[in-house]
Amino acid sequence: MNSPTAFPANALGLKSLLGTESLKSEQIQILISTALCFKALQQKGQEVPSTLAGKSAVLMFFESSTRTRSSFELAVQKLKGNALVLTKVGSSAEKGETLLDTARNIEAMDPDVLVLRHPSAGSPFVLDKALDLPLINAGDGFHEQPTQALLDLMIVFEKRKKIGGTRVLIVGDIAHSRVARSDIYALKTMGAEVSVCGPPTLLPPKVEKMGVRVFHCLEEAVHGQEVVMMLRIQFERMSSGQTPSLGEYSRFYGMNQKILKLCRPDVLIMHPGPVNRGVELSTEVADSAQSVILDQVANGVLLRMATLHLLLGGEPFSWKEKIQ
Amino acid sequence: MNSPTAFPANALGLKSLLGTESLKSEQIQILISTALCFKALQQKGQEVPSTLAGKSAVLMFFESSTRTRSSFELAVQKLKGNALVLTKVGSSAEKGETLLDTARNIEAMDPDVLVLRHPSAGSPFVLDKALDLPLINAGDGFHEQPTQALLDLMIVFEKRKKIGGTRVLIVGDIAHSRVARSDIYALKTMGAEVSVCGPPTLLPPKVEKMGVRVFHCLEEAVHGQEVVMMLRIQFERMSSGQTPSLGEYSRFYGMNQKILKLCRPDVLIMHPGPVNRGVELSTEVADSAQSVILDQVANGVLLRMATLHLLLGGEPFSWKEKIQ
Amino acid sequence: MNSPTAFPANALGLKSLLGTESLKSEQIQILISTALCFKALQQKGQEVPSTLAGKSAVLMFFESSTRTRSSFELAVQKLKGNALVLTKVGSSAEKGETLLDTARNIEAMDPDVLVLRHPSAGSPFVLDKALDLPLINAGDGFHEQPTQALLDLMIVFEKRKKIGGTRVLIVGDIAHSRVARSDIYALKTMGAEVSVCGPPTLLPPKVEKMGVRVFHCLEEAVHGQEVVMMLRIQFERMSSGQTPSLGEYSRFYGMNQKILKLCRPDVLIMHPGPVNRGVELSTEVADSAQSVILDQVANGVLLRMATLHLLLGGEPFSWKEKIQ
Repeated sequence: MNSPTAFPANALGLKSLLGTESLKSEQIQILISTALCFKALQQKGQEVPSTLAGKSAVLMFFESSTRTRSSFELAVQKLKGNALVLTKVGSSAEKGETLLDTARNIEAMDPDVLVLRHPSAGSPFVLDKALDLPLINAGDGFHEQPTQALLDLMIVFEKRKKIGGTRVLIVGDIAHSRVARSDIYALKTMGAEVSVCGPPTLLPPKVEKMGVRVFHCLEEAVHGQEVVMMLRIQFERMSSGQTPSLGEYSRFYGMNQKILKLCRPDVLIMHPGPVNRGVELSTEVADSAQSVILDQVANGVLLRMATLHLLLGGEPFSWKEKIQ
Repeated sequence: MNSPTAFPANALGLKSLLGTESLKSEQIQILISTALCFKALQQKGQEVPSTLAGKSAVLMFFESSTRTRSSFELAVQKLKGNALVLTKVGSSAEKGETLLDTARNIEAMDPDVLVLRHPSAGSPFVLDKALDLPLINAGDGFHEQPTQALLDLMIVFEKRKKIGGTRVLIVGDIAHSRVARSDIYALKTMGAEVSVCGPPTLLPPKVEKMGVRVFHCLEEAVHGQEVVMMLRIQFERMSSGQTPSLGEYSRFYGMNQKILKLCRPDVLIMHPGPVNRGVELSTEVADSAQSVILDQVANGVLLRMATLHLLLGGEPFSWKEKIQ
Repeated sequence: MNSPTAFPANALGLKSLLGTESLKSEQIQILISTALCFKALQQKGQEVPSTLAGKSAVLMFFESSTRTRSSFELAVQKLKGNALVLTKVGSSAEKGETLLDTARNIEAMDPDVLVLRHPSAGSPFVLDKALDLPLINAGDGFHEQPTQALLDLMIVFEKRKKIGGTRVLIVGDIAHSRVARSDIYALKTMGAEVSVCGPPTLLPPKVEKMGVRVFHCLEEAVHGQEVVMMLRIQFERMSSGQTPSLGEYSRFYGMNQKILKLCRPDVLIMHPGPVNRGVELSTEVADSAQSVILDQVANGVLLRMATLHLLLGGEPFSWKEKIQ
């Protein structure tokens, strides 16, 4: 609706956050730095900016989600904005309207930002070209989940004091995981050493071209890793035949106390949730001292606040240490 | 709950907005005038009134809807109010409670206004008699959809500088369309010349008594029309046997570039959405210069803001030109 | 997330409101007293406290509900807070996440209070041990529904000027009713004389041990009662074979005008809703002068406001008369 400007007037230099693939390290730094400052403000009981006061964020979630939707909704509330949630149930999508028409209609109603989760890879990229509205990709099929990757990097930085050079292993269904894809792009951009581990059927073809080391044996892969990210088995997304039985998957690629003993004692165990306890992670490991799963969730709200704040023209906040 | 007053203390002189059938031209003028002023305020970056600050609007949507529900929810947010959304899924209606009992219970909770969409024609009229709460009809079966009609008139006025005398054609399933019914009432009250076009099975019996001219041939009907409103084919509402195949319907009553060439070059093409592309409207026409479909959506939020503002006792805003 | 303190720094001395079984009379007095003061403020058009300004309440409703969910959502809005609603549909619970994991994740996102409705008796008690977040039980299976009981006591006090010594009869499916259980605990704590009436199969074994008098004949039970609480038949919860046909149930245990004539003329007829008209209550009785069903609903919002206000550290309000 507004006339498009040549360059977004915000510190990120981005109209939208669609993925991490094209993010530069400076943009990642600004996002994480601002999120860390918001965390510090909250811990001191000080006010975060009211960037969304009088503004409305539309959350279009066309896949079921507790965590990501709630995380964005709370992020909007903490910045004093209003969230409007649209799900596929009860929407015009059920009446056969195209996603582009739905989105153009929403844009015509003059909200301030759109957050989209959609089962089709690439859908937010198509919408973003057609809309003037800033857009945040909250997960598009098996393609990207940029805010998840950025919160993962935020926690790596908090716990390791650096991202560059950190040895990170991602375990599981890399081929169907938008989280893995977004994490690999962002970690590589920041100079981390990334490895992946999974059965050959669950790794993307030519995954090495993403600049990662490939393992098929978890016992071997975990040696010396500083961070181990366990992926969720996406029962609902996988076509049959690509994995052995759950029991076999869990036995060869699940993280349990036996495998944990092969890791560095200060390893960070991460998981994007929701956890299938007893499949990717044993309950003992999920609740262990090495697990930072709930810290990831906490950082999620902060990182999404930072994203909303910056895309809507808020000033970047500068962290006391360089994010690198 | 409150003692009813003899006459609502608002500029509209209405407790509720149930339909356009009984609206007087002065009431239509106040609503459109206030909505146009809100639009001008927003375009100048100025504040609209905080009429709903500290107030709650309950949106009871017992039919699926993206556009109307979102439009009302954003309208509430822009007036600084809180929206509470109730759908049939997850509600007491599923436990067999009557609509009247549900509504009386909601009223007892002391919200400030109720917006109702319901599949039964007449249901908001029944509720309105039983409740002291102001009520807005957001669509009752095939009966009325007053805010849609008012936003349609608003765009006619914006683009034509008048409503009275304007030649308007409504095309499609008039018999099952609450939008057509509300548009005809409001357009006639403002003195427009209204025609309808559709297959005989989709026109209400004795439709001429509504003061409209009747066509069965679209090529003939469009000549000289200043506004052509295409209705949505309501797959979900129609009983079988009333229409020929979709292909045939589209061939005889769909708007495409061939028909558009028979129209005045400055014709306005309208559609209440969601559009079935390739059925009522070809994609070329939906996206053409003559199409004002997204302007309708934009005006929808403003007209609903005006309705909420005025019903809750806000001052009317006076537009620089007379709405006529 | 925050370090737990030895004793909650609020006037109730409670971290959470899980049930009425362990509530002391002073706690009941503070809750009802504060709710009565909120009602008086609203009736005088004065502001209630903005206790939830800038705060977020998560409403996890894993059973369908209009009334209780809306009541809590409006209570949050009236205290100037933000509500975030989670239902089982569209949530991670559908992906097989445990309730405890879902709740821990929500807590990690740093909301201010959690309201939970869940079909499993005891679930809020389990969560409360694991979370630092204040929690309100909005119904756990057939176990407790404390805010419903407290609003019931509030209306008894308003209409009878006392709770202690009042003769209260609860009629229906006591065994499966969380409302009955919570009401009995709270009424007994305040010194009311409680009786129950229902077919033997719908009374808990050894119900007399709760300190109530037991009737099986409604005509006999209603004599001299000051309050008669009719319970909802929970079609969706009862296993088959425990009740005779609905027609028989209604004939023996339904409240109709014939039974009403056997009651004191000033009896209060209560029902937690939603009412199955013609089953527990005839339409004439539901809409009679003795019925206070809609007053219960109105008090529900106020009592929930008081609960949220007090649990989050708000000052208690002192009512002009002693609640006893």
